[in-house]
Amino acid sequence: MRADLALVGFGHVGRRFARLLAENRTRLIDELDLDCSIVGIATARHHSAYGLAGLDALAAARLVESGESIQALHDPAAGPMPKNGFDLIDRLGASDAPLRVLVENTVLNITGGQPAVDHVRRALDAGCHVVTANKGPAAFAYHELQEMAGARRASFLFESAVMDGIPVFGLVRETMPLAVVRGFRGVLNSTTNHILTALEDGEEYAHALARMQADGIAEADPSLDVDGWDAAAKAAVLANVLLGERVTPHDVRRRGIGPDAAAGARAARRRGRRLRLLASAARGEVPVVEPVELPEDDLLAGLRGTANALVLETDLLGKVAICQLDGSLTQTAYGLLGDLVTIRRRAALPEARPRRSP
Amino acid sequence: MRADLALVGFGHVGRRFARLLAENRTRLIDELDLDCSIVGIATARHHSAYGLAGLDALAAARLVESGESIQALHDPAAGPMPKNGFDLIDRLGASDAPLRVLVENTVLNITGGQPAVDHVRRALDAGCHVVTANKGPAAFAYHELQEMAGARRASFLFESAVMDGIPVFGLVRETMPLAVVRGFRGVLNSTTNHILTALEDGEEYAHALARMQADGIAEADPSLDVDGWDAAAKAAVLANVLLGERVTPHDVRRRGIGPDAAAGARAARRRGRRLRLLASAARGEVPVVEPVELPEDDLLAGLRGTANALVLETDLLGKVAICQLDGSLTQTAYGLLGDLVTIRRRAALPEARPRRSP
Repeated sequence: MRADLALVGFGHVGRRFARLLAENRTRLIDELDLDCSIVGIATARHHSAYGLAGLDALAAARLVESGESIQALHDPAAGPMPKNGFDLIDRLGASDAPLRVLVENTVLNITGGQPAVDHVRRALDAGCHVVTANKGPAAFAYHELQEMAGARRASFLFESAVMDGIPVFGLVRETMPLAVVRGFRGVLNSTTNHILTALEDGEEYAHALARMQADGIAEADPSLDVDGWDAAAKAAVLANVLLGERVTPHDVRRRGIGPDAAAGARAARRRGRRLRLLASAARGEVPVVEPVELPEDDLLAGLRGTANALVLETDLLGKVAICQLDGSLTQTAYGLLGDLVTIRRRAALPEARPRRSP
Repeated sequence: MRADLALVGFGHVGRRFARLLAENRTRLIDELDLDCSIVGIATARHHSAYGLAGLDALAAARLVESGESIQALHDPAAGPMPKNGFDLIDRLGASDAPLRVLVENTVLNITGGQPAVDHVRRALDAGCHVVTANKGPAAFAYHELQEMAGARRASFLFESAVMDGIPVFGLVRETMPLAVVRGFRGVLNSTTNHILTALEDGEEYAHALARMQADGIAEADPSLDVDGWDAAAKAAVLANVLLGERVTPHDVRRRGIGPDAAAGARAARRRGRRLRLLASAARGEVPVVEPVELPEDDLLAGLRGTANALVLETDLLGKVAICQLDGSLTQTAYGLLGDLVTIRRRAALPEARPRRSP
């Protein structure tokens, strides 16, 4: 089955996705009957390109990495170069491929999730499917977007948004029928966990942070991480999807970490405990992100470095945890690929949508 | 869609399954269009019963728990009482329900997996589906049974066999398309983990074991657990299914624990480490079950009491762990229910079998 893909946002994640897709092209066709073609790419600073016959996305990645524009890849026979992401999405909506998928990988805007939320709206409105590693859409508008998708028999999927492609949502959706998730606890932000474990090992805060930045783990502006916004956005997504809450990252009770965490992390360790930035929520309660001292035998206390984990509290299955012991861009890109496979599998069902969302 | 179920083996797991099925009957019908009827039960010491209109399985459970025979529940209009499990499976094979499912819950026979392996063979041969919490069939004959199932468009599922219903196989099958599992490490036996954590807390071996037996965690004959056979059977199932190996529990290099583990567990703890009964394997290597001293920051070291965990080493997703933080009979029964739902979902697909097994 043919799938036309439009990539809006072509940063590290989008480019790694394009490469992973190329690496697995044959297997996707042979094993899953999914023949993907990247027909459009819209970037923030390197222009856009569109071509019904499919673009050379690897060439596009190389151009962006050399600081060049991708407009040379645009096919003039397909009309003018798309002006922006919305314009590209409209072109995708006009495609006649059996599957049309927006792959949204713009960066998280913590103020209100835009323009990603509107990108997703525009695609779903045209009956296109959406996969995204951006937390914004599900953190700020999950229920609205999910209902739009449902009404149009389209899928809105975001496996990569919370644990870099480790299948959190797939686990619940595909493997836990009938079970109700009552709450969760998790360590979901790699940068702060990396810093906290460095602090408990005796490193200074500024030094630990600078080292993460040099290693490319923390951003130049680390405030989204250390102020707890990244974890709050993930907590909002999880609360919206798994607990049926209607919250945004701004509803999460949030406290991050700063230089003063060093004393706390070391004091905790002296007591045989561990300081971790914990995200937690339960049905009907306000989600919380805050540094918490955990006993040593708590699964989450044992997570070191960039490891992440999520403990789900369920009715029928008790406490189930899923952990990512090493994270990388490949996993994030893989999550997008897994979502594409879910869309393909759903297309094989007589009823195009599962009863359970997302 | 109607499903006729035959329960062969009606011990703790079988009875909890019957109750869980009754508790979720309405939701199974409403949410999943799955209308299950238990048409037959074969027990080891309380006779058998069969009735095309469906048996009162809750009454059967009460009879068995009172030490009474279930033969009063048999419907004479359906012919003579089934002589044994095989006889019941033959009756199921003659049913005209759209789904016919053997629910095999006899106890593990570590010598060769019988009669469970033959029960599964007989059911698949008649085109029935099979779900089982028994490790034997997949530990001793996975590839043969899976091929039989495939040839007949039937499913052979055993989610409850390894981690009490925590979705290990579902996780890989449903949520990790294209990814290759290269190996695994796990703490998979609750009794020995409970004993080892008690030992490191200072309890004596005999005392810890007696306490587990009194609590119903360890069997009266604990040798399957402490000698490592239970973990070896689970390692064999995982190696057969996830790594494509062809092994039985007898091929696993196996060392259990005994009273001498106390000194090892305490010495490890003094060094800030933990002694755990580790099951591990990699493609092309002999699976191993043995006590291993783990560093404190190993996820598996932090598992206390009856907690279990499995770390999968994959190509595209790195190291992914799934953990069961509290186990109970309900989870084991839930795993069987989840397998039934998988059978129902597959029945909705135009091609009855997925490309990826099981």
